[in-house]
Amino acid sequence: MTTDHLPESSAGAAPRGRPRDANRDRALMDATLTELQLHGYSGLTTAAVARRAGVSTATLYRRWRSKQDLVVGAAQAWAENLGPDIDHKDLRSDLGALLQDKATALEGPSGRLLRAVLGEAAHNRALADVLFDAFVIPLQERVLALLERAVARQEIPPVEDPLVVAEMVIGPMVSHTFLVPPGQGGEAETSPGTDIAERLLPYLLRALGVREP
Amino acid sequence: MTTDHLPESSAGAAPRGRPRDANRDRALMDATLTELQLHGYSGLTTAAVARRAGVSTATLYRRWRSKQDLVVGAAQAWAENLGPDIDHKDLRSDLGALLQDKATALEGPSGRLLRAVLGEAAHNRALADVLFDAFVIPLQERVLALLERAVARQEIPPVEDPLVVAEMVIGPMVSHTFLVPPGQGGEAETSPGTDIAERLLPYLLRALGVREP
Repeated sequence: MTTDHLPESSAGAAPRGRPRDANRDRALMDATLTELQLHGYSGLTTAAVARRAGVSTATLYRRWRSKQDLVVGAAQAWAENLGPDIDHKDLRSDLGALLQDKATALEGPSGRLLRAVLGEAAHNRALADVLFDAFVIPLQERVLALLERAVARQEIPPVEDPLVVAEMVIGPMVSHTFLVPPGQGGEAETSPGTDIAERLLPYLLRALGVREP
Repeated sequence: MTTDHLPESSAGAAPRGRPRDANRDRALMDATLTELQLHGYSGLTTAAVARRAGVSTATLYRRWRSKQDLVVGAAQAWAENLGPDIDHKDLRSDLGALLQDKATALEGPSGRLLRAVLGEAAHNRALADVLFDAFVIPLQERVLALLERAVARQEIPPVEDPLVVAEMVIGPMVSHTFLVPPGQGGEAETSPGTDIAERLLPYLLRALGVREP
Protein backbone atom coordinates (compact mmCIF):
# COMPACT_ATOMS: atom_id res chain seq x y z
CA MET A 1 0.00 0.00 0.00
CA THR A 2 1.15 3.52 -0.67
CA THR A 3 0.11 7.03 0.30
CA ASP A 4 1.96 8.62 -2.62
CA HIS A 5 -1.31 9.54 -4.27
CA LEU A 6 -2.63 11.67 -1.44
CA PRO A 7 -5.36 14.12 -2.34
CA GLU A 8 -4.45 17.47 -3.86
CA SER A 9 -3.55 20.07 -1.29
CA SER A 10 -6.07 22.88 -1.11
CA ALA A 11 -5.24 26.54 -1.55
CA GLY A 12 -3.12 27.95 1.27
CA ALA A 13 -1.41 24.66 2.15
CA ALA A 14 2.37 24.45 2.24
CA PRO A 15 4.08 23.40 -1.02
CA ARG A 16 3.91 19.65 -1.70
CA GLY A 17 6.80 17.30 -1.39
CA ARG A 18 8.50 18.39 1.81
CA PRO A 19 9.15 15.27 3.91
CA ARG A 20 7.64 16.90 7.00
CA ASP A 21 4.33 17.42 5.16
CA ALA A 22 4.32 13.92 3.70
CA ASN A 23 4.84 12.44 7.16
CA ARG A 24 2.10 14.59 8.60
CA ASP A 25 -0.34 13.67 5.84
CA ARG A 26 0.49 10.03 6.27
CA ALA A 27 -0.11 10.28 10.02
CA LEU A 28 -3.50 11.90 9.34
CA MET A 29 -4.50 9.15 6.91
CA ASP A 30 -3.39 6.48 9.41
CA ALA A 31 -5.37 8.22 12.14
CA THR A 32 -8.45 8.49 9.91
CA LEU A 33 -8.37 4.75 9.21
CA THR A 34 -7.96 3.91 12.90
CA GLU A 35 -10.82 6.21 13.94
CA LEU A 36 -13.07 4.79 11.20
CA GLN A 37 -12.40 1.26 12.40
CA LEU A 38 -13.06 2.22 16.01
CA HIS A 39 -16.08 4.48 15.62
CA GLY A 40 -17.39 4.19 12.05
CA TYR A 41 -18.07 7.17 9.81
CA SER A 42 -20.74 8.74 11.99
CA GLY A 43 -18.67 8.34 15.15
CA LEU A 44 -15.53 9.85 13.63
CA THR A 45 -14.64 13.44 14.50
CA THR A 46 -11.96 15.54 12.83
CA ALA A 47 -10.83 16.58 16.33
CA ALA A 48 -10.15 12.95 17.29
CA VAL A 49 -8.27 12.33 14.02
CA ALA A 50 -6.13 15.45 14.54
CA ARG A 51 -5.42 14.48 18.14
CA ARG A 52 -4.42 10.94 17.16
CA ALA A 53 -2.15 12.26 14.39
CA GLY A 54 -0.60 14.81 16.73
CA VAL A 55 -1.56 17.85 14.65
CA SER A 56 -3.91 20.78 15.26
CA THR A 57 -7.40 20.73 13.78
CA ALA A 58 -6.40 23.91 11.90
CA THR A 59 -3.66 21.92 10.15
CA LEU A 60 -6.13 19.19 9.28
CA TYR A 61 -8.63 21.69 7.89
CA ARG A 62 -5.97 23.34 5.72
CA ARG A 63 -5.89 20.16 3.69
CA TRP A 64 -9.36 18.64 4.20
CA ARG A 65 -12.20 21.09 4.55
CA SER A 66 -14.67 18.74 6.18
CA LYS A 67 -15.04 15.31 7.70
CA GLN A 68 -16.38 14.02 4.38
CA ASP A 69 -13.36 15.46 2.53
CA LEU A 70 -11.06 13.75 5.02
CA VAL A 71 -12.72 10.33 4.65
CA VAL A 72 -12.88 10.62 0.85
CA GLY A 73 -9.16 11.55 0.99
CA ALA A 74 -8.47 8.48 3.11
CA ALA A 75 -10.35 6.25 0.65
CA GLN A 76 -8.14 7.64 -2.14
CA ALA A 77 -4.99 7.28 -0.06
CA TRP A 78 -5.85 3.70 0.89
CA ALA A 79 -7.20 2.76 -2.53
CA GLU A 80 -6.64 -0.82 -3.32
CA ASN A 81 -3.13 -1.26 -4.63
CA LEU A 82 -3.39 -4.45 -6.64
CA GLY A 83 0.22 -4.29 -7.76
CA PRO A 84 1.44 -4.52 -11.36
CA ASP A 85 -0.47 -6.54 -13.95
CA ILE A 86 2.24 -9.00 -14.96
CA ASP A 87 1.55 -10.89 -18.20
CA HIS A 88 2.16 -14.57 -17.41
CA LYS A 89 1.08 -15.61 -20.93
CA ASP A 90 -1.41 -17.94 -19.29
CA LEU A 91 -4.95 -17.25 -18.03
CA ARG A 92 -4.67 -19.51 -14.99
CA SER A 93 -1.54 -17.72 -13.80
CA ASP A 94 -2.89 -14.24 -14.59
CA LEU A 95 -6.18 -14.86 -12.80
CA GLY A 96 -4.50 -16.66 -9.89
CA ALA A 97 -2.17 -13.69 -9.38
CA LEU A 98 -5.08 -11.23 -9.46
CA LEU A 99 -7.02 -13.27 -6.89
CA GLN A 100 -3.99 -13.36 -4.59
CA ASP A 101 -3.43 -9.61 -5.03
CA LYS A 102 -7.07 -9.02 -4.16
CA ALA A 103 -6.84 -11.27 -1.08
CA THR A 104 -3.78 -9.40 0.15
CA ALA A 105 -5.44 -6.02 -0.45
CA LEU A 106 -8.66 -6.99 1.35
CA GLU A 107 -6.76 -8.22 4.37
CA GLY A 108 -4.69 -5.02 4.57
CA PRO A 109 -5.55 -1.39 5.36
CA SER A 110 -7.52 -0.81 2.15
CA GLY A 111 -9.84 -3.71 3.00
CA ARG A 112 -10.28 -2.42 6.54
CA LEU A 113 -11.15 1.03 5.22
CA LEU A 114 -13.64 -0.39 2.73
CA ARG A 115 -15.34 -2.40 5.41
CA ALA A 116 -15.53 0.55 7.81
CA VAL A 117 -17.20 2.93 5.33
CA LEU A 118 -19.43 0.60 3.29
CA GLY A 119 -22.45 1.36 5.49
CA GLU A 120 -22.02 5.13 5.19
CA ALA A 121 -21.62 4.87 1.40
CA ALA A 122 -25.23 3.62 1.23
CA HIS A 123 -26.41 7.22 1.72
CA ASN A 124 -23.31 9.25 0.87
CA ARG A 125 -22.86 9.54 -2.87
CA ALA A 126 -19.42 11.22 -2.73
CA LEU A 127 -18.12 8.32 -0.68
CA ALA A 128 -19.86 5.72 -2.88
CA ASP A 129 -18.24 7.25 -5.95
CA VAL A 130 -14.74 7.28 -4.49
CA LEU A 131 -15.12 3.65 -3.36
CA PHE A 132 -16.16 2.71 -6.88
CA ASP A 133 -13.17 4.54 -8.35
CA ALA A 134 -10.71 3.21 -5.78
CA PHE A 135 -11.87 -0.38 -5.38
CA VAL A 136 -13.94 -1.44 -8.39
CA ILE A 137 -12.39 0.33 -11.39
CA PRO A 138 -8.78 -0.90 -10.84
CA LEU A 139 -10.01 -4.48 -10.55
CA GLN A 140 -12.24 -4.18 -13.62
CA GLU A 141 -9.26 -2.89 -15.59
CA ARG A 142 -7.07 -5.83 -14.53
CA VAL A 143 -9.85 -8.29 -15.44
CA LEU A 144 -10.51 -6.68 -18.82
CA ALA A 145 -6.78 -6.73 -19.67
CA LEU A 146 -6.20 -10.35 -18.70
CA LEU A 147 -9.35 -11.55 -20.49
CA GLU A 148 -8.31 -9.71 -23.64
CA ARG A 149 -4.92 -11.41 -23.56
CA ALA A 150 -6.49 -14.84 -23.00
CA VAL A 151 -8.90 -14.34 -25.91
CA ALA A 152 -6.02 -13.17 -28.14
CA ARG A 153 -4.11 -16.36 -27.23
CA GLN A 154 -7.32 -18.33 -28.05
CA GLU A 155 -7.30 -19.85 -24.59
CA ILE A 156 -10.97 -18.92 -24.19
CA PRO A 157 -13.80 -17.79 -26.48
CA PRO A 158 -14.66 -14.05 -26.50
CA VAL A 159 -16.22 -12.92 -23.20
CA GLU A 160 -19.67 -11.38 -23.63
CA ASP A 161 -19.89 -9.68 -20.25
CA PRO A 162 -16.42 -9.03 -18.79
CA LEU A 163 -17.83 -6.79 -16.02
CA VAL A 164 -19.71 -9.77 -14.62
CA VAL A 165 -16.44 -11.67 -14.57
CA ALA A 166 -14.96 -8.79 -12.55
CA GLU A 167 -17.86 -9.16 -10.07
CA MET A 168 -17.12 -12.88 -9.84
CA VAL A 169 -13.58 -11.99 -8.77
CA ILE A 170 -14.34 -9.11 -6.41
CA GLY A 171 -17.59 -10.49 -4.96
CA PRO A 172 -16.61 -13.84 -3.43
CA MET A 173 -13.35 -12.33 -2.16
CA VAL A 174 -15.29 -9.57 -0.38
CA SER A 175 -18.09 -11.80 0.94
CA HIS A 176 -15.66 -14.44 2.20
CA THR A 177 -13.37 -11.91 3.89
CA PHE A 178 -16.19 -9.80 5.39
CA LEU A 179 -18.90 -12.38 6.15
CA VAL A 180 -17.24 -15.64 7.12
CA PRO A 181 -15.88 -15.52 10.69
CA PRO A 182 -12.43 -17.10 11.19
CA GLY A 183 -12.69 -20.87 11.46
CA GLN A 184 -16.11 -21.07 9.75
CA GLY A 185 -14.90 -21.07 6.16
CA GLY A 186 -13.42 -24.54 5.99
CA GLU A 187 -10.00 -23.06 5.29
CA ALA A 188 -6.81 -24.76 6.35
CA GLU A 189 -3.69 -22.99 7.59
CA THR A 190 -3.76 -20.19 5.05
CA SER A 191 -5.57 -16.89 5.47
CA PRO A 192 -9.28 -16.82 4.51
CA GLY A 193 -8.53 -14.61 1.50
CA THR A 194 -5.77 -16.84 0.14
CA ASP A 195 -7.88 -19.90 0.77
CA ILE A 196 -10.92 -18.67 -1.14
CA ALA A 197 -8.69 -17.33 -3.93
CA GLU A 198 -7.33 -20.81 -4.54
CA ARG A 199 -10.71 -22.53 -4.33
CA LEU A 200 -12.36 -20.00 -6.62
CA LEU A 201 -9.84 -20.27 -9.46
CA PRO A 202 -10.99 -23.57 -11.06
CA TYR A 203 -14.64 -22.41 -11.07
CA LEU A 204 -13.75 -19.08 -12.68
CA LEU A 205 -11.68 -20.80 -15.36
CA ARG A 206 -14.57 -23.13 -16.17
CA ALA A 207 -17.02 -20.21 -16.24
CA LEU A 208 -14.77 -18.60 -18.86
CA GLY A 209 -14.84 -21.73 -21.00
CA VAL A 210 -11.35 -23.10 -20.33
CA ARG A 211 -11.27 -26.78 -21.14
CA GLU A 212 -10.58 -29.19 -18.29
CA PRO A 213 -7.04 -30.58 -18.45
CA MET B 1 -39.49 -10.40 5.47
CA THR B 2 -40.89 -11.39 8.81
CA THR B 3 -40.34 -10.58 12.44
CA ASP B 4 -41.96 -13.79 13.65
CA HIS B 5 -38.63 -15.16 14.82
CA LEU B 6 -37.88 -12.39 17.26
CA PRO B 7 -35.33 -13.22 19.95
CA GLU B 8 -36.41 -15.08 23.06
CA SER B 9 -37.86 -12.82 25.73
CA SER B 10 -35.66 -12.60 28.82
CA ALA B 11 -36.83 -13.40 32.33
CA GLY B 12 -39.39 -10.96 33.65
CA ALA B 13 -40.81 -10.03 30.26
CA ALA B 14 -44.51 -10.31 29.59
CA PRO B 15 -45.76 -13.63 28.15
CA ARG B 16 -45.15 -13.99 24.40
CA GLY B 17 -47.80 -13.81 21.78
CA ARG B 18 -49.95 -10.90 22.89
CA PRO B 19 -50.52 -8.62 19.87
CA ARG B 20 -49.50 -5.54 21.85
CA ASP B 21 -46.08 -7.07 22.58
CA ALA B 22 -45.57 -8.21 19.02
CA ASN B 23 -46.33 -4.72 17.73
CA ARG B 24 -44.00 -3.18 20.28
CA ASP B 25 -41.19 -5.59 19.42
CA ARG B 26 -41.70 -4.95 15.74
CA ALA B 27 -41.54 -1.19 16.34
CA LEU B 28 -38.30 -1.65 18.27
CA MET B 29 -36.73 -3.72 15.47
CA ASP B 30 -37.84 -1.14 12.88
CA ALA B 31 -36.37 1.62 15.01
CA THR B 32 -33.10 -0.29 15.46
CA LEU B 33 -32.71 -0.67 11.70
CA THR B 34 -33.43 3.01 11.09
CA GLU B 35 -30.98 4.13 13.76
CA LEU B 36 -28.30 1.77 12.42
CA GLN B 37 -28.73 3.19 8.93
CA LEU B 38 -28.57 6.77 10.21
CA HIS B 39 -25.78 6.49 12.76
CA GLY B 40 -24.06 3.12 12.37
CA TYR B 41 -23.45 0.71 15.23
CA SER B 42 -21.22 3.00 17.25
CA GLY B 43 -23.57 5.97 16.84
CA LEU B 44 -26.67 4.00 17.88
CA THR B 45 -28.00 4.45 21.40
CA THR B 46 -30.68 2.35 23.06
CA ALA B 47 -32.30 5.61 24.23
CA ALA B 48 -32.72 6.81 20.62
CA VAL B 49 -34.14 3.44 19.57
CA ALA B 50 -36.64 3.45 22.44
CA ARG B 51 -37.63 7.06 21.66
CA ARG B 52 -38.15 6.28 17.98
CA ALA B 53 -40.22 3.18 18.84
CA GLY B 54 -42.26 5.14 21.37
CA VAL B 55 -41.39 2.91 24.32
CA SER B 56 -39.47 3.51 27.53
CA THR B 57 -35.84 2.40 27.77
CA ALA B 58 -36.96 0.18 30.68
CA THR B 59 -39.26 -1.67 28.27
CA LEU B 60 -36.44 -2.04 25.76
CA TYR B 61 -34.07 -3.37 28.45
CA ARG B 62 -36.61 -5.93 29.61
CA ARG B 63 -36.14 -7.70 26.30
CA TRP B 64 -32.63 -6.69 25.26
CA ARG B 65 -30.12 -6.27 28.02
CA SER B 66 -27.61 -4.21 26.07
CA LYS B 67 -27.04 -2.37 22.81
CA GLN B 68 -25.23 -5.41 21.44
CA ASP B 69 -28.15 -7.68 22.41
CA LEU B 70 -30.52 -5.31 20.63
CA VAL B 71 -28.49 -5.24 17.40
CA VAL B 72 -27.95 -9.01 17.44
CA GLY B 73 -31.72 -9.32 17.93
CA ALA B 74 -32.32 -7.03 14.97
CA ALA B 75 -29.96 -9.10 12.80
CA GLN B 76 -31.98 -12.20 13.73
CA ALA B 77 -35.30 -10.42 13.17
CA TRP B 78 -34.17 -9.11 9.78
CA ALA B 79 -32.37 -12.29 8.78
CA GLU B 80 -32.45 -12.83 5.09
CA ASN B 81 -35.73 -14.44 4.18
CA LEU B 82 -34.93 -16.14 0.90
CA GLY B 83 -38.38 -17.65 0.57
CA PRO B 84 -39.17 -21.30 -0.05
CA ASP B 85 -36.78 -23.51 -2.03
CA ILE B 86 -39.09 -24.60 -4.85
CA ASP B 87 -37.84 -27.57 -6.87
CA HIS B 88 -38.14 -26.53 -10.54
CA LYS B 89 -36.60 -29.85 -11.70
CA ASP B 90 -34.09 -27.75 -13.62
CA LEU B 91 -30.79 -26.21 -12.45
CA ARG B 92 -31.18 -23.03 -14.50
CA SER B 93 -34.60 -22.31 -12.97
CA ASP B 94 -33.53 -23.24 -9.44
CA LEU B 95 -30.41 -21.10 -9.58
CA GLY B 96 -32.20 -18.22 -11.32
CA ALA B 97 -34.88 -18.20 -8.61
CA LEU B 98 -32.24 -18.20 -5.85
CA LEU B 99 -30.38 -15.28 -7.46
CA GLN B 100 -33.63 -13.30 -7.72
CA ASP B 101 -34.52 -14.11 -4.11
CA LYS B 102 -31.08 -12.93 -3.06
CA ALA B 103 -31.42 -9.71 -5.09
CA THR B 104 -34.79 -8.97 -3.47
CA ALA B 105 -33.42 -9.67 0.01
CA LEU B 106 -30.34 -7.47 -0.47
CA GLU B 107 -32.43 -4.56 -1.68
CA GLY B 108 -34.82 -4.85 1.28
CA PRO B 109 -34.44 -4.28 5.02
CA SER B 110 -32.20 -7.30 5.58
CA GLY B 111 -29.71 -5.98 3.04
CA ARG B 112 -29.77 -2.53 4.61
CA LEU B 113 -29.15 -4.04 8.04
CA LEU B 114 -26.25 -6.15 6.73
CA ARG B 115 -24.66 -3.14 5.12
CA ALA B 116 -25.05 -0.98 8.25
CA VAL B 117 -23.36 -3.47 10.62
CA LEU B 118 -20.70 -5.08 8.40
CA GLY B 119 -18.05 -2.65 9.64
CA GLU B 120 -18.82 -3.32 13.30
CA ALA B 121 -18.76 -7.08 12.73
CA ALA B 122 -15.05 -6.77 11.90
CA HIS B 123 -14.32 -6.47 15.62
CA ASN B 124 -17.50 -7.80 17.23
CA ARG B 125 -17.53 -11.58 17.20
CA ALA B 126 -21.13 -11.94 18.50
CA LEU B 127 -22.35 -9.79 15.63
CA ALA B 128 -20.11 -11.56 13.08
CA ASP B 129 -21.51 -14.91 14.20
CA VAL B 130 -25.16 -13.83 13.93
CA LEU B 131 -24.53 -12.35 10.47
CA PHE B 132 -23.01 -15.65 9.39
CA ASP B 133 -25.99 -17.58 10.77
CA ALA B 134 -28.58 -15.17 9.36
CA PHE B 135 -27.10 -14.37 5.96
CA VAL B 136 -24.61 -17.04 4.93
CA ILE B 137 -25.98 -20.33 6.29
CA PRO B 138 -29.49 -20.06 4.70
CA LEU B 139 -27.94 -19.33 1.31
CA GLN B 140 -25.42 -22.16 1.65
CA GLU B 141 -28.29 -24.53 2.45
CA ARG B 142 -30.26 -23.48 -0.63
CA VAL B 143 -27.15 -23.87 -2.83
CA LEU B 144 -26.29 -27.30 -1.41
CA ALA B 145 -29.86 -28.52 -1.93
CA LEU B 146 -30.19 -27.31 -5.52
CA LEU B 147 -26.77 -28.66 -6.48
CA GLU B 148 -27.63 -32.05 -5.01
CA ARG B 149 -30.82 -32.18 -7.07
CA ALA B 150 -28.97 -31.17 -10.25
CA VAL B 151 -26.31 -33.83 -9.68
CA ALA B 152 -29.03 -36.44 -9.00
CA ARG B 153 -30.68 -35.48 -12.32
CA GLN B 154 -27.23 -35.81 -13.96
CA GLU B 155 -27.47 -32.25 -15.25
CA ILE B 156 -23.98 -31.55 -13.86
CA PRO B 157 -21.07 -33.61 -12.61
CA PRO B 158 -20.58 -33.86 -8.82
CA VAL B 159 -19.53 -30.52 -7.28
CA GLU B 160 -16.23 -30.74 -5.40
CA ASP B 161 -16.55 -27.51 -3.43
CA PRO B 162 -20.22 -26.45 -3.07
CA LEU B 163 -19.36 -23.77 -0.49
CA VAL B 164 -17.34 -21.93 -3.13
CA VAL B 165 -20.39 -22.05 -5.39
CA ALA B 166 -22.37 -20.45 -2.55
CA GLU B 167 -19.75 -17.66 -2.41
CA MET B 168 -20.12 -17.19 -6.17
CA VAL B 169 -23.83 -16.57 -5.60
CA ILE B 170 -23.64 -14.39 -2.49
CA GLY B 171 -20.43 -12.51 -3.41
CA PRO B 172 -21.25 -10.81 -6.72
CA MET B 173 -24.76 -10.02 -5.49
CA VAL B 174 -23.32 -8.28 -2.41
CA SER B 175 -20.48 -6.50 -4.22
CA HIS B 176 -22.74 -5.27 -7.01
CA THR B 177 -25.46 -4.05 -4.63
CA PHE B 178 -23.07 -2.45 -2.14
CA LEU B 179 -20.21 -1.20 -4.33
CA VAL B 180 -21.62 -0.12 -7.68
CA PRO B 181 -23.38 3.26 -7.46
CA PRO B 182 -26.68 3.51 -9.37
CA GLY B 183 -26.06 4.10 -13.06
CA GLN B 184 -22.46 2.78 -12.99
CA GLY B 185 -23.24 -0.90 -13.37
CA GLY B 186 -24.34 -0.91 -16.98
CA GLU B 187 -27.80 -2.10 -15.94
CA ALA B 188 -30.89 -1.19 -17.92
CA GLU B 189 -34.33 -0.45 -16.42
CA THR B 190 -34.25 -3.22 -13.83
CA SER B 191 -32.85 -2.89 -10.32
CA PRO B 192 -29.08 -3.45 -9.91
CA GLY B 193 -29.70 -6.70 -8.02
CA THR B 194 -32.05 -8.14 -10.63
CA ASP B 195 -29.71 -7.03 -13.39
CA ILE B 196 -26.63 -8.72 -11.96
CA ALA B 197 -28.65 -11.84 -11.07
CA GLU B 198 -29.57 -12.30 -14.74
CA ARG B 199 -26.09 -11.60 -16.06
CA LEU B 200 -24.45 -13.90 -13.52
CA LEU B 201 -26.60 -16.94 -14.27
CA PRO B 202 -24.94 -18.16 -17.52
CA TYR B 203 -21.46 -17.88 -15.97
CA LEU B 204 -22.50 -19.85 -12.90
CA LEU B 205 -24.08 -22.58 -15.01
CA ARG B 206 -20.90 -22.87 -17.06
CA ALA B 207 -18.76 -22.93 -13.89
CA LEU B 208 -20.86 -25.89 -12.76
CA GLY B 209 -20.22 -27.74 -15.99
CA VAL B 210 -23.60 -27.31 -17.70
CA ARG B 211 -23.22 -27.79 -21.44
CA GLU B 212 -24.00 -24.82 -23.68
CA PRO B 213 -27.34 -25.23 -25.46
